[in-house]
Amino acid sequence: MSTNTTADNIIDGKAFAAKLKEKVGRQVAILKEQHGLIPGLAVVLVGADPASEVYVRNKNSSTKAAGMNSYEHRLDACVSEAELLTLVEQLNHDPAVHGILVQLPLPKHINEAAVIDAISPDKDVDGFHVINSGLLATGGKGMVPCTPLGCIMMLKDRLGNLSGLDAVVVGRSNIVGKPMAQLLLNESCTVTIAHSRTKNLPDVVRRADIVVAAVGVPELVKGDWIKKGATVIDVGINRITTDEGKTRLVGDVEFAAAAKNAAAITPVPGGVGPMTIGVLLQNTVTAACRQAGVTEPEV
Amino acid sequence: MSTNTTADNIIDGKAFAAKLKEKVGRQVAILKEQHGLIPGLAVVLVGADPASEVYVRNKNSSTKAAGMNSYEHRLDACVSEAELLTLVEQLNHDPAVHGILVQLPLPKHINEAAVIDAISPDKDVDGFHVINSGLLATGGKGMVPCTPLGCIMMLKDRLGNLSGLDAVVVGRSNIVGKPMAQLLLNESCTVTIAHSRTKNLPDVVRRADIVVAAVGVPELVKGDWIKKGATVIDVGINRITTDEGKTRLVGDVEFAAAAKNAAAITPVPGGVGPMTIGVLLQNTVTAACRQAGVTEPEV
Repeated sequence: MSTNTTADNIIDGKAFAAKLKEKVGRQVAILKEQHGLIPGLAVVLVGADPASEVYVRNKNSSTKAAGMNSYEHRLDACVSEAELLTLVEQLNHDPAVHGILVQLPLPKHINEAAVIDAISPDKDVDGFHVINSGLLATGGKGMVPCTPLGCIMMLKDRLGNLSGLDAVVVGRSNIVGKPMAQLLLNESCTVTIAHSRTKNLPDVVRRADIVVAAVGVPELVKGDWIKKGATVIDVGINRITTDEGKTRLVGDVEFAAAAKNAAAITPVPGGVGPMTIGVLLQNTVTAACRQAGVTEPEV
Repeated sequence: MSTNTTADNIIDGKAFAAKLKEKVGRQVAILKEQHGLIPGLAVVLVGADPASEVYVRNKNSSTKAAGMNSYEHRLDACVSEAELLTLVEQLNHDPAVHGILVQLPLPKHINEAAVIDAISPDKDVDGFHVINSGLLATGGKGMVPCTPLGCIMMLKDRLGNLSGLDAVVVGRSNIVGKPMAQLLLNESCTVTIAHSRTKNLPDVVRRADIVVAAVGVPELVKGDWIKKGATVIDVGINRITTDEGKTRLVGDVEFAAAAKNAAAITPVPGGVGPMTIGVLLQNTVTAACRQAGVTEPEV
């Protein structure tokens, strides 16, 4: 059951993330030198959820490590929606801020959708604004949610051209499943979206050249569902308790068994997870370039 | 090769449209009586494309027949984009107008996307505004494009609950294929989107309980691709020239052969086509009710 990340068919998310962050760092250096442009990311954290604290801290340090400006805004858990909206509006108008990320979840008294849709779509580096969802759904040029965008990057890095491949997305969340399906369709895959109501899920998954699992059910996708030679992206991160009473992280895919059939597979942990912040930085560079009207540097 | 619309398995689009228009008429009567609300639809036609002229005339007469107000705006083919946008802005602010439809295509010197996105999303009865695409993509409550919405109405009318059914959409246009896939997903179908790059299209279609063909290729989908008992919705309208030199309309599905396998199938002509204006009227009622803050009458 070891996740041997040196095996040929394991997609090493940490290595991928490191490469991506390094690429972003070089882009930032070029933008500074050639255009005097320093991309800036503002992260807003409401309250003190421990997991969110960790994410925000990582985002902050990664942003700085890439040579960008990081602006952290910490608000009390009982801040009013109006105060939060006022801050978002200030950030929308701040020319030093090219990306705005409001860390979710927000306290229950605040309408998350209203806050997200208050962010300028151009600065919505999480890609959750309804206009960005619409642009993605219609092939327009918007900001794309980090996790599915990163999954596509990994797939293209591994497979090259995805055109004509049979892709199955298990899960239909707004954050991963649905945008993932749109992105695979944009790459000209034949895309199937499966979910809890799908009949014969094993058969549906068995047809796939590409499987993206994003349901949040530990090891739902069994190893023998994976077609020989398929590529498997596991977005799930589930904490389970073992028979010995210890906890450990598993994905939505039965990793060891699936790895026997898959030509390539992401482990959990160490697969999709580490890569997401890299994509966030990439999105911030993209947003900064578009706002400044400069071409994104090719590095 | 006759399209015998009395056969049990033929979905009669004209009859469906008549029922829908009658339903809308009753809703309008209730809205007038109980709320003094008369839904109004403004249709903007630029230039004098003969096909568009016919559509606009039909929309106008159907709107009036349903007891609603119809406002026709005819602009010269060389009208500037700015003038058109000014008209849209006026209509956005006109409280008597609940739905705005700008007849496409527009002349080449006008940016269609800019005009569509200038329409207030609440009044966008064609459902093409990027915000409405985003709402559809994320399960929100927006305006839904008429043709796919009508297809879903026909499917639910015939099959009842669609949950768990395998649906294949052939075609990935922004106007039909993509919103169709979203709507089928919202009904909890397992949805596959196939297109020109799909490998083994026959096998993909053979798996489907529901086939929606929307590619604009005459009789692309062959009769023997249709699973016994499947429901087939043919959105294609293609004019072909027969061996005798006559022209006739055919769909994207080889109708007669498919009808032998299908439990239900829409003919072309007489299937999806006639129903679209009915859905437009329904969307106008929906838009009017939302704008007036009244519940849509159940009839």
